[in-house]
Amino acid sequence: MVTGQQWELRRRPSGYPVPGDVALVEAQVPGPRPGQLLVRNHYLSVDPSHRGRMNDVKSYTPAYQIGQALWGGAVGEVLASEDARIPVGAFVQHNLGWRTHSVVDASTVDVVDPAVGGLAAYLGVLGMPGLTAWVGLYDIGQLRPGEVVWVSAATGAVGSLAGQLARLAGCRVVGSAGGDEKCRYAVEQLGFDACVDHRAGDLNGQLREVLPDGLDVYFDNVGGSHLRAAIDLANPFARLVECGMIEGYNEAMQPVDNLASIVGKKLSIRGFVVWDHWSRLALFRKHVGGLLTSGAVHYDETVVVGIEHQLDALLTLLRGGGHRGKLVVDVRP
Amino acid sequence: MVTGQQWELRRRPSGYPVPGDVALVEAQVPGPRPGQLLVRNHYLSVDPSHRGRMNDVKSYTPAYQIGQALWGGAVGEVLASEDARIPVGAFVQHNLGWRTHSVVDASTVDVVDPAVGGLAAYLGVLGMPGLTAWVGLYDIGQLRPGEVVWVSAATGAVGSLAGQLARLAGCRVVGSAGGDEKCRYAVEQLGFDACVDHRAGDLNGQLREVLPDGLDVYFDNVGGSHLRAAIDLANPFARLVECGMIEGYNEAMQPVDNLASIVGKKLSIRGFVVWDHWSRLALFRKHVGGLLTSGAVHYDETVVVGIEHQLDALLTLLRGGGHRGKLVVDVRP
Repeated sequence: MVTGQQWELRRRPSGYPVPGDVALVEAQVPGPRPGQLLVRNHYLSVDPSHRGRMNDVKSYTPAYQIGQALWGGAVGEVLASEDARIPVGAFVQHNLGWRTHSVVDASTVDVVDPAVGGLAAYLGVLGMPGLTAWVGLYDIGQLRPGEVVWVSAATGAVGSLAGQLARLAGCRVVGSAGGDEKCRYAVEQLGFDACVDHRAGDLNGQLREVLPDGLDVYFDNVGGSHLRAAIDLANPFARLVECGMIEGYNEAMQPVDNLASIVGKKLSIRGFVVWDHWSRLALFRKHVGGLLTSGAVHYDETVVVGIEHQLDALLTLLRGGGHRGKLVVDVRP
Repeated sequence: MVTGQQWELRRRPSGYPVPGDVALVEAQVPGPRPGQLLVRNHYLSVDPSHRGRMNDVKSYTPAYQIGQALWGGAVGEVLASEDARIPVGAFVQHNLGWRTHSVVDASTVDVVDPAVGGLAAYLGVLGMPGLTAWVGLYDIGQLRPGEVVWVSAATGAVGSLAGQLARLAGCRVVGSAGGDEKCRYAVEQLGFDACVDHRAGDLNGQLREVLPDGLDVYFDNVGGSHLRAAIDLANPFARLVECGMIEGYNEAMQPVDNLASIVGKKLSIRGFVVWDHWSRLALFRKHVGGLLTSGAVHYDETVVVGIEHQLDALLTLLRGGGHRGKLVVDVRP
């Protein structure tokens, strides 16, 4: 039995979560039972979906339960193993984050190689957000070389890879992000052809300038105002990849009043959740791991140190704060 | 040169069209040039899409032009031919309706066999609306046997076939329509498992009763309130076939405020226009022609006599009036 720390849900938030909604507590961590591992986590993931799980909704991934620990992506080192295939000292990616120590079923973890991209990359470009970008663009969006692509939340963990992959496919890629600094980063570091600042107003007008020939694929992380603009700018047969709708997570989403164009423009609007596509992980890691090693893909992390700051980090993410790339919490011993 | 009659657009309607918006006029019809046919029309089609073409919108089928004749589906007999493959006396389906006589390019017509289903059927169950139902259900909706299907505008030219085809695929099929009489017709004549009357109010509540296990495919002819209900009732991975949104053709469509579920439920919402799928016509006609001949598919027409009544017929259609099945105008000599 070791003593660790974990975040628990105390009550369901209304709007942005506040400190009383979740709490960091000490926890006694039992040893692993047969088929299990005890993992000392090094990095915890911070993702927009964590906010959604605080609501009591069905038919998405399961909601967090009041009085119980939160969970999410994490990477760490195996301290004790009751599974013959995974030795003590191995590094694994698993889904019981928001805590310093995790007891996980060995069948649910991925053993990872920290030499490729660094350990925290398995929470970002080589992990769930990276696979989300890859599946969304290719499997859901059916991207074809030379098309015109718009990626919203372009500097986030998902958007930054989606945009770069589309560029590597010979596409014209436009991003959107909140603030001038993020937009410069998208163009200068990530290679987007253009990026519009949705905080500067007149989203449709700004987009029309940088998308004079409309768009063929829209990778949606925002919903509401952005989905509406995408329908306006879509070319016939455009695919709208519905990855997330962060605009509606804490506030009411802006109305989408141009849905009639779905018929006339023959649009495909398709939602997906990455967990249904986990079988693609090996192929994705081979592809993107190679691009990362060769330098064809640029990857940034923002690291917040200390498990006590994970709620603040989530709020930063939800408010579109100043981080760039993947946001992780360093909880190393 | 023969003298015929045709409907012309005088000004673009606002809301429901009124008599001054379109006008029936005499027209001098020239003889066919090389590669053309002169057709004496027997039946003219009345379709919801005719209203949309009165607006000046781009990226759908071309809009009607002010001062020019309307057009739409028609079947008739060839009076004069300048094409070696199509003789005088043949029956053809073409797209220059809203007139008694049409001069058409022979390459754009389909020669039809009035012995199968009757000539007007090529405007309905064996024509554009039938192909729309067939493509929408199979190619767009990817219908699988045993799924649960909701078809709106269930008694219309498209919906009535879509529902019957889904039933023949072993699906549970629920319809919606305006008024108790239509609903009885859907269940008793068309074989729907249930049909809800959207004029009776509480659409979602009514649907929840007849769809206790949710829905897998929604065939949308209405949009707005109906699309919203479909998203509410959709099972994970449901497909929403966006064929038409008649709710918004003349009045403002009701808002769809539950779009966030597209992501969590992993929905596919896909618009289509039948003209992109015309290559499927022969296979469709073989399939549905056989079902019609064997009696496996029930087909009704409502026939309005006299070209002077075509605008009234369109208004009946747009207001969801008392007709059943395909609405056509008989303009035989």
